[in-house]
Amino acid sequence: MFYVIGLGLCDEKDISIRGLEAVKGASRVYLEAYTSILMISQERLEAFYEKPIIVADRDMVETQSDEILKDADKEDVALLVVGDPFGATTHTDIVLRARALGIPTRVIHNASIMNAVGACGLQLYNFGQTVSLVFFTETWKPDSYYDRVKENVKLGMHTLVLLDIKVKEQSEENLARGRKIYEPPRYMSIPTAVSQLLETEASRQEGILEPETTLAIALSRVGGDSSQQKIVAGTLKELLNQPVEVYGEPLHSLVIVGKRVHHLEIEYAEDYAVDKASWRRVAKDMYKCTEL
Amino acid sequence: MFYVIGLGLCDEKDISIRGLEAVKGASRVYLEAYTSILMISQERLEAFYEKPIIVADRDMVETQSDEILKDADKEDVALLVVGDPFGATTHTDIVLRARALGIPTRVIHNASIMNAVGACGLQLYNFGQTVSLVFFTETWKPDSYYDRVKENVKLGMHTLVLLDIKVKEQSEENLARGRKIYEPPRYMSIPTAVSQLLETEASRQEGILEPETTLAIALSRVGGDSSQQKIVAGTLKELLNQPVEVYGEPLHSLVIVGKRVHHLEIEYAEDYAVDKASWRRVAKDMYKCTEL
Repeated sequence: MFYVIGLGLCDEKDISIRGLEAVKGASRVYLEAYTSILMISQERLEAFYEKPIIVADRDMVETQSDEILKDADKEDVALLVVGDPFGATTHTDIVLRARALGIPTRVIHNASIMNAVGACGLQLYNFGQTVSLVFFTETWKPDSYYDRVKENVKLGMHTLVLLDIKVKEQSEENLARGRKIYEPPRYMSIPTAVSQLLETEASRQEGILEPETTLAIALSRVGGDSSQQKIVAGTLKELLNQPVEVYGEPLHSLVIVGKRVHHLEIEYAEDYAVDKASWRRVAKDMYKCTEL
Repeated sequence: MFYVIGLGLCDEKDISIRGLEAVKGASRVYLEAYTSILMISQERLEAFYEKPIIVADRDMVETQSDEILKDADKEDVALLVVGDPFGATTHTDIVLRARALGIPTRVIHNASIMNAVGACGLQLYNFGQTVSLVFFTETWKPDSYYDRVKENVKLGMHTLVLLDIKVKEQSEENLARGRKIYEPPRYMSIPTAVSQLLETEASRQEGILEPETTLAIALSRVGGDSSQQKIVAGTLKELLNQPVEVYGEPLHSLVIVGKRVHHLEIEYAEDYAVDKASWRRVAKDMYKCTEL
């Protein structure tokens, strides 16, 4: 059996009992270490599972799937994935490959940011499509995400914005010299994300994202304990101006609040507001939450 | 500490290690048994946890939250929720109440249908808002969900449709006589759901849901083993005409496929199609999946 096992959001204890049993029974255990970043070390996971883990980068999962799937028709092989196997980035390719090889597969689900985002108090059924925001460079500022945000905003839906992670980046010099030396991972911060949103707005000028009248909520390490999980709510301008420490450790996500927001969603999230009075005022005036 | 713990989708083994530890350490354990239905019995859960569980219906969670929260500032109390605590129905009220009482709260996330729906092969970031479909009666056929489906369809987004559950219904006679005797739970089946969708379409006539050219995917017991999890794909008409057994045991959910669907999503889901040739043909002709 080929198991694809969601690890959930925080650490080794977020795996399910079923997932842990599958890990314990597997001959080989791979950890997919690209799409999201586990908050704990490989060593800690190995100690918890009492067995070695093979770290599989995205390349390996995509190009060497037959290696991973080897003998999975005769013994159990587990691929561990941060979050849920069908979360923001999916693992459909390797499941399709297993299917083609006649290898039975079982997916063990877990929380991912796609549902745990509900922790901010906004209702999941009021979310529209999810978008990803990549790091802008001097010469490359892809803004197609803006069209999707616009679609959500026009319908009054909330938008979950997933922020870019750069892993296995090479410096220009190392790239030129063909040296496989990688830079440390980079995570987009909330202020960077907001400044990119506002940069796109400034160039598109369609009035979708307004510094002082668009409400948003930043999340990090959702599901962690109170020293880890950070949720910060405010106008885009307020979020832009907070020191990065306020947002805690990466990974970060951002939610743009839609106009159909219910006053109870606003009240729940108010607890996380940078400035509660401003949060409430903007919700009342610009989001028509007259019950507040 | 007040713990709100997601149990995940299937049975006692879907709880996380962290969740199980919190249950083991709690003085009182409540199980919220309204919004979704666990696939296993209370007794089996109690045996697994080695402690008694207090079943809390929706009424109790809403009106007697102070009873549940009693002493949670001094000892640990756990509220178990099927799926994720912030899934389709949220538990924000009781968390707000805990906040007001100064009781620290920790949410332990898990999979819910809102993210596990990715198991059908459709990408989560291509989903628009989620809708709920309630049982129609002779005189009450609420169709406001149709407007939301229409918004998603017009943007080409997929729609997750959550199907109604009736628990604690009273017969007219028992209701009239004030007898608290409840009917067995009722779950909406996929054919019933599809026939209601088509009934609304027939009355609204906006061409949003077409029997022969709208593709949809039915899911039940997502995350269960191969004897439990059922995923069935087809046109609305095909799904309407399958015998109910094809769809397995409740709970069921339905996804209406949006026009922005990628050919890889179609290929992945084809494995679940009632009629693979028809699935592919409709995707090619009506969904412009020309790469197929």
